[in-house]
Amino acid sequence: MNDQYDAHPDTRAPGPFRDSVRACRVRLARVIEPSDTAGLVLLRALGPEVLWRSITELDAPSAPLASVYRRAAGEALPGARVPDLARRFAAWRARLPVAEPAVDARHAELIGAWTVIPEDPDWPEQLADLGLQEPIVLWGRGRREALGHLERGVSVVGSRHASAYGAAVTRMIVGEVSEAGWCVVSGGAYGIDAVAHQTALEVSPATTPTVAVLACGVDRFYPVANAELLARICDRGAVLSEVPLGCAPTRYRFLQRNRIIAALSRATVVTEAAWRSGALNTARHAAGLSREVAAVPGDVLVGGSAGCHRLVREDHAVLVSNGAEVLELVGALGNDATRDTVSRNENLDRRPEDCLDPLQLRVFDALPLHTDVEPDRICRVSGLGPGEVLAALATLRELGLAADSLLGWRRVGSPHGRKSTDHGSA
Amino acid sequence: MNDQYDAHPDTRAPGPFRDSVRACRVRLARVIEPSDTAGLVLLRALGPEVLWRSITELDAPSAPLASVYRRAAGEALPGARVPDLARRFAAWRARLPVAEPAVDARHAELIGAWTVIPEDPDWPEQLADLGLQEPIVLWGRGRREALGHLERGVSVVGSRHASAYGAAVTRMIVGEVSEAGWCVVSGGAYGIDAVAHQTALEVSPATTPTVAVLACGVDRFYPVANAELLARICDRGAVLSEVPLGCAPTRYRFLQRNRIIAALSRATVVTEAAWRSGALNTARHAAGLSREVAAVPGDVLVGGSAGCHRLVREDHAVLVSNGAEVLELVGALGNDATRDTVSRNENLDRRPEDCLDPLQLRVFDALPLHTDVEPDRICRVSGLGPGEVLAALATLRELGLAADSLLGWRRVGSPHGRKSTDHGSA
Repeated sequence: MNDQYDAHPDTRAPGPFRDSVRACRVRLARVIEPSDTAGLVLLRALGPEVLWRSITELDAPSAPLASVYRRAAGEALPGARVPDLARRFAAWRARLPVAEPAVDARHAELIGAWTVIPEDPDWPEQLADLGLQEPIVLWGRGRREALGHLERGVSVVGSRHASAYGAAVTRMIVGEVSEAGWCVVSGGAYGIDAVAHQTALEVSPATTPTVAVLACGVDRFYPVANAELLARICDRGAVLSEVPLGCAPTRYRFLQRNRIIAALSRATVVTEAAWRSGALNTARHAAGLSREVAAVPGDVLVGGSAGCHRLVREDHAVLVSNGAEVLELVGALGNDATRDTVSRNENLDRRPEDCLDPLQLRVFDALPLHTDVEPDRICRVSGLGPGEVLAALATLRELGLAADSLLGWRRVGSPHGRKSTDHGSA
Repeated sequence: MNDQYDAHPDTRAPGPFRDSVRACRVRLARVIEPSDTAGLVLLRALGPEVLWRSITELDAPSAPLASVYRRAAGEALPGARVPDLARRFAAWRARLPVAEPAVDARHAELIGAWTVIPEDPDWPEQLADLGLQEPIVLWGRGRREALGHLERGVSVVGSRHASAYGAAVTRMIVGEVSEAGWCVVSGGAYGIDAVAHQTALEVSPATTPTVAVLACGVDRFYPVANAELLARICDRGAVLSEVPLGCAPTRYRFLQRNRIIAALSRATVVTEAAWRSGALNTARHAAGLSREVAAVPGDVLVGGSAGCHRLVREDHAVLVSNGAEVLELVGALGNDATRDTVSRNENLDRRPEDCLDPLQLRVFDALPLHTDVEPDRICRVSGLGPGEVLAALATLRELGLAADSLLGWRRVGSPHGRKSTDHGSA
């Protein structure tokens, strides 16, 4: 058996695993689960080839290996409990029979899957922010060039049980973000994920891919009901996973997968999430990686957005109501664009008299709509002096808010008059 | 005419204005509008009696008065443009004919109105936080003892055009806050204000009043459609205003009134507000006074809560979803109560396996539901060593999540199994 996992897989493994580093990483990913600290410490210290040879050739950690491990683990995990190497080593060796690269290679060829490793020029550099938790390898299907678009990536995630509201909000936000040329990353699941990918496929320019990161092997389009969607994502973008071919999604893998969604993109937006939702886990990974985190609020009476509200309250996520606010967050809007958005909102119910200063407002308030009054009376009603009143009246006339005649002054109101004013609480 | 406004109103004014300080403040409030800086600077420097005598006895500011004013204004408004005293003085004098305390006194007696001034023992002390902008006097109707309850006051404000959602949210929050014995303050207007007062009247213990702060005289129950509501507020609580009897609400007075709502209570909660709403003005006053500010989120697609979202985004208002979160904000909940609320939420969809550590979770994930497997296989599937697997299995058995038989181990799942898990995005 050792023979099968020898140190020169480049000469043995067929197809996509000809080069040794790639072959070793693919095999290591079969025996070391995501975030297995001991394995990742050794991978960093020894590199994939030496680590693989050690696991296959040694029955138990040798003294030099244990010494390398202790030093590397002490550096990588200062102050933390260092996992017991002998135990981990036994666990990796127990899994050796499943690491069959020839089978993987055949399978990959059949379904058009590929791998990308940190040594590749197109490895998404932003994954290095994961430090020790950087994936050993990523499996992919679809367009490999989608990896390059992830530099302008926004993750849009949320509940599997999406409400009509959550779906509508997701469509709105993904629509605006995609149209601006940003690559939407999500998890390929039911609910918000599916809506995010679908919208990105419908809305975004043909050149902008959408990327799904799965918690199972990329050969399994899970959930099955999303198989067609995932196939369409492969046509226009890519499906990625750090989990080897054939592996089922487990909760542990879902939680691990979320860190990749968070790390790949510049911001994570939670469009709908209940109080406890895996999407919060993704958001917290993003915050831990100093990525922007945003959440869309919703109805507080039904609870579907309780997780989003929790993120804003407890985790200082930025509250966003539309795609423009997401783009603002990732710095995709110039100052002009930002100002446009703000003024668009501010114009929503702007009235001409809104630009008045307090003194002018008092004079405006004192002007009747249906009769003409003399400045004297305006002075008494407003409590202002004649000089102030006359100056204000002149300004109001310029603004078209007051008119004078031989009989005095009157207000030239907005069509609805003052009655329509919302004085707020109030 | 000077005779009518002499320096000894205590001997002339009937009824509620017998004492001179009160009579002077009531009259000053007739000639000096809220936040008339020059008048307030002089009021602070001279006191109500001397200021009143100066306005009535001098045709224009005397040299000593002008000197007092310059010094006091320089101290009160360092670096700011000092309003021109001669102009203001002329404006006050132009209003002298309207300051007829005898009429006010008769009117007040008729409708059961009273006044409270900073010199009174029951003047709400928190208004001093307004500094120069502290009201000159407050007119009131209803139960004067309500003033004492304002120490435990929460302002609940929002749009006049309340949606069904805004009304429901306001009912929920006011219900919880009132039941906890907090006095709800609002503006007596249509929409959110009306719902807040109504709910407080229905829900709160008979001992807890609700207080409405109006932008017009307390003799005018404005808006007219709320007259019955305002009368009921007087039965159980109080209606307050700094504006003299008979005065109409103007936009300037609404904006000024909002500072009193903000100052009277410990927190201001905006339950529903569009992008531009007077409620935002109240919230900003509250923030400026170092009061707590909270906003309830809502649907981002309809815009009715856009002002609330804006407060959270731009003004760092705390997002709240229920009354408990408001009470937490004003420190009304002990630590235990806070913990109760949190755990109540956390239990919403808690599953037994949620308490597992990552290693136990991996073993749990590796356990089949319908067949028994030996630990060896669990080691391979989970990628863990035999020692780790056996320790985790023992814990899982203790928690009732795994069972062993002669044939091996299987999962004892929650009724819905793992399929119901929301892995979030995904």
